[in-house]
Amino acid sequence: MRLIECVPNLSEGRDLGVIDRITQVVSQTKGIKLLHRTSDYDHNRSVLTFTGQANALREAVLIMYEEVANLIDMRDHQGEHPRIGAVDVCPFVPLGATKMTECRDLAEEVASIVGPKHALPVYLYEEAALHEERRRLENVRRGQYEGLERKLENAAWHPDFGPGEFNPRLGATIIGARKILIAYNVNLRSQDLGVAKKIAAAIRESSGGLRNVKALGINMAHLDKVQVSMNLTDYQATPIHRVFELIRAEAARYGVEVAESELIGLAPADAFLSAAAHYLHLEDFSEQRTLEYLIHASG
Amino acid sequence: MRLIECVPNLSEGRDLGVIDRITQVVSQTKGIKLLHRTSDYDHNRSVLTFTGQANALREAVLIMYEEVANLIDMRDHQGEHPRIGAVDVCPFVPLGATKMTECRDLAEEVASIVGPKHALPVYLYEEAALHEERRRLENVRRGQYEGLERKLENAAWHPDFGPGEFNPRLGATIIGARKILIAYNVNLRSQDLGVAKKIAAAIRESSGGLRNVKALGINMAHLDKVQVSMNLTDYQATPIHRVFELIRAEAARYGVEVAESELIGLAPADAFLSAAAHYLHLEDFSEQRTLEYLIHASG
Repeated sequence: MRLIECVPNLSEGRDLGVIDRITQVVSQTKGIKLLHRTSDYDHNRSVLTFTGQANALREAVLIMYEEVANLIDMRDHQGEHPRIGAVDVCPFVPLGATKMTECRDLAEEVASIVGPKHALPVYLYEEAALHEERRRLENVRRGQYEGLERKLENAAWHPDFGPGEFNPRLGATIIGARKILIAYNVNLRSQDLGVAKKIAAAIRESSGGLRNVKALGINMAHLDKVQVSMNLTDYQATPIHRVFELIRAEAARYGVEVAESELIGLAPADAFLSAAAHYLHLEDFSEQRTLEYLIHASG
Repeated sequence: MRLIECVPNLSEGRDLGVIDRITQVVSQTKGIKLLHRTSDYDHNRSVLTFTGQANALREAVLIMYEEVANLIDMRDHQGEHPRIGAVDVCPFVPLGATKMTECRDLAEEVASIVGPKHALPVYLYEEAALHEERRRLENVRRGQYEGLERKLENAAWHPDFGPGEFNPRLGATIIGARKILIAYNVNLRSQDLGVAKKIAAAIRESSGGLRNVKALGINMAHLDKVQVSMNLTDYQATPIHRVFELIRAEAARYGVEVAESELIGLAPADAFLSAAAHYLHLEDFSEQRTLEYLIHASG
């Protein structure tokens, strides 16, 4: 069975009734297993995680776009997390032996349907990108929803699918194929957004920090804290514990402590097993030393 | 499927050809899945981990006792780890929805067969104990192989099954049923066995330390280190990271550093996921946030 994971990020994190209804149509699709859902008030954003084979996923995602078109209106949307549209990002991730090409094909097929159907500008990103400058999510999202109308006037940002006209209700959507990504946030015992922004700049790849780390400083007014909000795009090369310890060291420079960290959505177990191995100085340890792994392993 | 785990500890860790042969007869038994094997030179001890349903396990364990009777001779045995016989300990552990009573019944059945068959004194321990003072493994093993002949002369230590006479070749065997146990060792950058013994005494339950921790100081001459060798009998109540940090603090008192730690055999993933959550200050995190768990979960 060739499983694919789909992790859409939706621009609604406060009206949970809306997210309930969207989640319901997805999880009722035949062949779909909903693994997780999470909503954040300050981000005003929700993330669903579900798996299935390509055909089932295509059906579920098409129904999801339809529900979102009925229920989310970007003209009312405010939130701390950058976003360009109602279904802000919709990545497909190969699991197990599934090939990336299968996810790329699925992304392109979904894009070719939802663009015309919902009069929705669609950009393809990461492994599904058709243009090199659209590979990185942050490039596509730059300017956000508020800058989208002007962005669309630039020929370089004509969408890959769908119309070139601004859709005020839905904004744009970014569909793609990528490797497993860990969405991981560290909250700081501070209300100084400047500190969070400086730490984010210090640790992210784009400004001289760690490879495979994207980071933003974000105000979590709801918690009276600030946050370093991250995507870790290769947790094996750049493990979570190294990111966490670097944030701790940078924060100490400002007399700020780490309050807590959080995983958004799901992550592979070995991302955290390797953190345990680091802190406990464990030798010769891996996922393959856990009972669950061996019991589920074939053979 | 009601799975049971069996984790026999064998008094041979140097002649790996012997362990190969014993492992082979076990893993070739129908219905048995061998999950892991490990041997330690200094301990002169090997641990096998395999699973199956009760009937398959009974067959595998009976064949294992037969091979051990042919291949291991306690009269030649020296090692750092305490032991009372060739199959020193043989616990059955319920997995998933399996009941402890099923493991207790299996322990008693195996004991009733191997005792007479191999002229082998058998003690039942932990949840399978028939006498309260035989519940704790260390009580049964006290005096070790070298003290067994005299121990058997004491009516209070007449075996639960098998003859009351000393078997010089095989010693005794301790069979039982228990919850999941984590065998976890911490090596210290020191050759001072006294330090390891003092730390072991400081952290173990029996002398005022942490609940659910059994610990010994052991010389690892092979590594030029000393070791705190432990059994953690309830990793949920007394998590690994707390044990590790307490050892580190006690060792610092003697100017000694932790070199590395090691898991013997296998452990449940959540024992290490919870260590990661501790060190990373992770909120709202559990095994159920890992992809693997949710993909294998039923429903």
